[in-house]
Amino acid sequence: MTCLLTHRSVREILFSMALRGPLSRLLRSTLSSCQQNRSQSVAILGAPFSKGQKRRGVEHGPKAIRDAGLVERLSNLDYAVHDFGDLTFKHLEKDEHFMHVPFPRTVGRANQLLSGAVSGAVGAGHTCIMLGGDHSLAIGSVEGHAQQCPDLCLIWVDAHADINTPLTSPSGNLHGQSVAFLLKDLQNKMPEVPGFSWMKPFLSARDLVYIGLRDVDPGEHIILKTLGIQYFSMRDIDRMGIQRVMEVTLDHLLARKQRPIHLSFDIDAFDPSLAPATGTPVNGGLTYREGIYVTEEIHNTGLLSVMDVVEVNPTLGATPEAVEATTSLAVDVIASALGQTREGAHIAFPKIPEPKEDTELRL
Amino acid sequence: MTCLLTHRSVREILFSMALRGPLSRLLRSTLSSCQQNRSQSVAILGAPFSKGQKRRGVEHGPKAIRDAGLVERLSNLDYAVHDFGDLTFKHLEKDEHFMHVPFPRTVGRANQLLSGAVSGAVGAGHTCIMLGGDHSLAIGSVEGHAQQCPDLCLIWVDAHADINTPLTSPSGNLHGQSVAFLLKDLQNKMPEVPGFSWMKPFLSARDLVYIGLRDVDPGEHIILKTLGIQYFSMRDIDRMGIQRVMEVTLDHLLARKQRPIHLSFDIDAFDPSLAPATGTPVNGGLTYREGIYVTEEIHNTGLLSVMDVVEVNPTLGATPEAVEATTSLAVDVIASALGQTREGAHIAFPKIPEPKEDTELRL
Amino acid sequence: MTCLLTHRSVREILFSMALRGPLSRLLRSTLSSCQQNRSQSVAILGAPFSKGQKRRGVEHGPKAIRDAGLVERLSNLDYAVHDFGDLTFKHLEKDEHFMHVPFPRTVGRANQLLSGAVSGAVGAGHTCIMLGGDHSLAIGSVEGHAQQCPDLCLIWVDAHADINTPLTSPSGNLHGQSVAFLLKDLQNKMPEVPGFSWMKPFLSARDLVYIGLRDVDPGEHIILKTLGIQYFSMRDIDRMGIQRVMEVTLDHLLARKQRPIHLSFDIDAFDPSLAPATGTPVNGGLTYREGIYVTEEIHNTGLLSVMDVVEVNPTLGATPEAVEATTSLAVDVIASALGQTREGAHIAFPKIPEPKEDTELRL
Repeated sequence: MTCLLTHRSVREILFSMALRGPLSRLLRSTLSSCQQNRSQSVAILGAPFSKGQKRRGVEHGPKAIRDAGLVERLSNLDYAVHDFGDLTFKHLEKDEHFMHVPFPRTVGRANQLLSGAVSGAVGAGHTCIMLGGDHSLAIGSVEGHAQQCPDLCLIWVDAHADINTPLTSPSGNLHGQSVAFLLKDLQNKMPEVPGFSWMKPFLSARDLVYIGLRDVDPGEHIILKTLGIQYFSMRDIDRMGIQRVMEVTLDHLLARKQRPIHLSFDIDAFDPSLAPATGTPVNGGLTYREGIYVTEEIHNTGLLSVMDVVEVNPTLGATPEAVEATTSLAVDVIASALGQTREGAHIAFPKIPEPKEDTELRL
Repeated sequence: MTCLLTHRSVREILFSMALRGPLSRLLRSTLSSCQQNRSQSVAILGAPFSKGQKRRGVEHGPKAIRDAGLVERLSNLDYAVHDFGDLTFKHLEKDEHFMHVPFPRTVGRANQLLSGAVSGAVGAGHTCIMLGGDHSLAIGSVEGHAQQCPDLCLIWVDAHADINTPLTSPSGNLHGQSVAFLLKDLQNKMPEVPGFSWMKPFLSARDLVYIGLRDVDPGEHIILKTLGIQYFSMRDIDRMGIQRVMEVTLDHLLARKQRPIHLSFDIDAFDPSLAPATGTPVNGGLTYREGIYVTEEIHNTGLLSVMDVVEVNPTLGATPEAVEATTSLAVDVIASALGQTREGAHIAFPKIPEPKEDTELRL
Repeated sequence: MTCLLTHRSVREILFSMALRGPLSRLLRSTLSSCQQNRSQSVAILGAPFSKGQKRRGVEHGPKAIRDAGLVERLSNLDYAVHDFGDLTFKHLEKDEHFMHVPFPRTVGRANQLLSGAVSGAVGAGHTCIMLGGDHSLAIGSVEGHAQQCPDLCLIWVDAHADINTPLTSPSGNLHGQSVAFLLKDLQNKMPEVPGFSWMKPFLSARDLVYIGLRDVDPGEHIILKTLGIQYFSMRDIDRMGIQRVMEVTLDHLLARKQRPIHLSFDIDAFDPSLAPATGTPVNGGLTYREGIYVTEEIHNTGLLSVMDVVEVNPTLGATPEAVEATTSLAVDVIASALGQTREGAHIAFPKIPEPKEDTELRL
């Protein structure tokens, strides 16, 4: 099945890129093999895992997001949707703390499993949607993606930077350390955490952009500054506007070279009034429209390859309405990242239909 | 009664227009007859009608908006307010579907009645506020307005484009087809719908601007694009900001020629968190401040002639507070369109009063 | 205790000011005596007073804001926090109306007391946080501040201008007249209100900027316009954006000369959806992020000397959650004004820590 309705033609993409000159040239070059056919089918991977933090319930995220109508929404966008169901994670019995980090081997093993699944889905030509689960799962998701697409870039939309090392983390929770496991630039700052010997850091700090930060730990701040990582806090969004933030983000990552995008979207990037059912809400987050704008812009590059949606915790909403708001928001950002538009799309109607004789009635 | 307090003097309007050069020149010319005296008195027309869609309750909109204090608010703005009460609409018994369009003759007849009432109110020199009812009523409202002011322009503030024809409409509901009945440019694309032989399309596509779209059907999209209609989706507002959107809107409609404005405001243009009591809410709508800004800018042109406020459905709010929020929002946008300001207005105080001897007391 | 973590070094401030050239030069000059040591310790003064208006309950504001965790939050920012407790105000028995102004002598006496307390706190080298109580308390707070720092400037964040005189006030309430008591420019427009003979107006209209106005009385409007006061209504914020509003505000007040800032923050500046527990809410207020941005920018000048937070009325929230939202918002804006950041701060980590041999474990 081809997705005529929802994906812009190359011509439309080139046109939309007109203001970012160098991109249009690059987009004319051949897509790399890891991107071929990606946009025609979507793989959904559920990752019901919560051991990267201490609150229970986030393992019910995949079911809650599916129940909010994910598959139907993506099918309506003319994708062939392949729901691969949920991965089965084991809680390892012998898994003592490493320093003050809980469940290191359990988290490591889960991510190893997830990595294989994501790699397989991308390798099979799907755009992959990974439903968490907590944000420690991004370790395996990005690693698996990188196996197929070593030149990927990473857009991390989150209230938190998740870039603590075990030596800087105030809580010890691994969902606040995911990015530190990915970065080559932090290799000599990271102790060898048990459970993670299956992987090596592979990402350069310059291939990562953060959007939405507003609760950054001191140790994270020195890492962000020392490594010169491009990040946009909510204050930056207030200063620049989301339109300019996305322009700079995409220029930073894509101006030199088109390449697959890994979008790791923590639902707590949104304001808690919109996404209350999550474990570490922080006031002053993205508006609905800003979140949708971010995903629209990423879709419009034509380069989205894997998207994580994490930290939806349906046990934490104060009311059923609060949970439903959070899960349907998750569906909305996924649909938007995959091409749902606000300005409309018309390929189902190549021209305005005209009335035939027999439909014309007289009073 | 003159409205010294709330209406800017011509000089003030000219000053506010200083940045839009061509306008100031035009504003010095004589007002056309259909505009004379308009701004000194307001006519309120209730249109308790719901057959342009399938949900019941929107016929209670006029009463709900009045109960929220409309007349008092406009009186406080120094208008002579003439409330003409509610029109009485008939549900025709013999009114089979046309294609999949329900109630065509009932909707046609209602709009014919409304058209006469609006034409009469405008002809009598009132600024006319039409309280719906569903948005199919805009057919009659704009048509009646055009009888008096054939050169009017139309600003359509809505989550939806309401520009389906019976051949493109997914639902068949006429409240999603109003604009198609108005446009000369669609004349040969429209079948002859029973109930509408009393009118002919009269509006040019270039005399229409949309603001707030975020749920556009495929058939609507091909119409918008084919006819080159100027529209601002929520994505456009996110990109440009509401200030620039209004600047472009007013330039597009008024730069060549000053002329009466018909503002057709669907309450669902607002975000559902602000206007929950409506039939087809769509997330990601206008903020309160954006909606007020739109109406302030329209007021500041001095050219508002007729305003529709539609789709307030007091039976659809989850709580009494939700209904009250929606109805008082409707009153706020009407008051703002008629000159209520946020920056203040002082004509009641020509200068700062000074204490007289006898008001000076000693301790 | 020094506040290494939260206060920018002079070099950082100079850098942040790079776009406002004249400021950087001025910042290099010596701080005036009233500012010395100010930023290292914070004095909290509770002012449980409600006679500047007619609704009861706002006298519980200081307790409610403290209960929301104020002292702990400021201590976490590395301040030495000195909570001086609540002032004790007397309700004078013989206190007839002056014109239609209720409780003039009671309000006057309360402000005289508060003035002394603020003067003392500033004189002792503290940054002073005054917790209201109603906004009439700003009379004494600003007056006491001016005793120590006669060259102060005033930023008034509020839905209302609070600049009526007894001759223009629709309600007579003194919390809507505070600014009129402060301004030299209004001296001959003010009757001699009993209870205020202890003070003389001392502030110039050019040393005052308003942010957030959206409900301005006619008499206030003529005063604002006649005196040429710089004010930013919500409409101005919609037009310019909060970033530009703060840039113009700080240029207006500080470009000629660095000097202490008095920030008088009425919680009703925020939208009622964020701060419902207040006496005179007005729709269409500041967003959470705009309010935080305002206080961040004021903190970044390094010149905040006294901050009032007023009109938190914990008896007016519809639910306990509504009250808690309002009080924790008050704590958030105070913390932000005193240096809490959204982009992070790292001085606790001078460099990224590296793992030692004995923390490296093998699987």
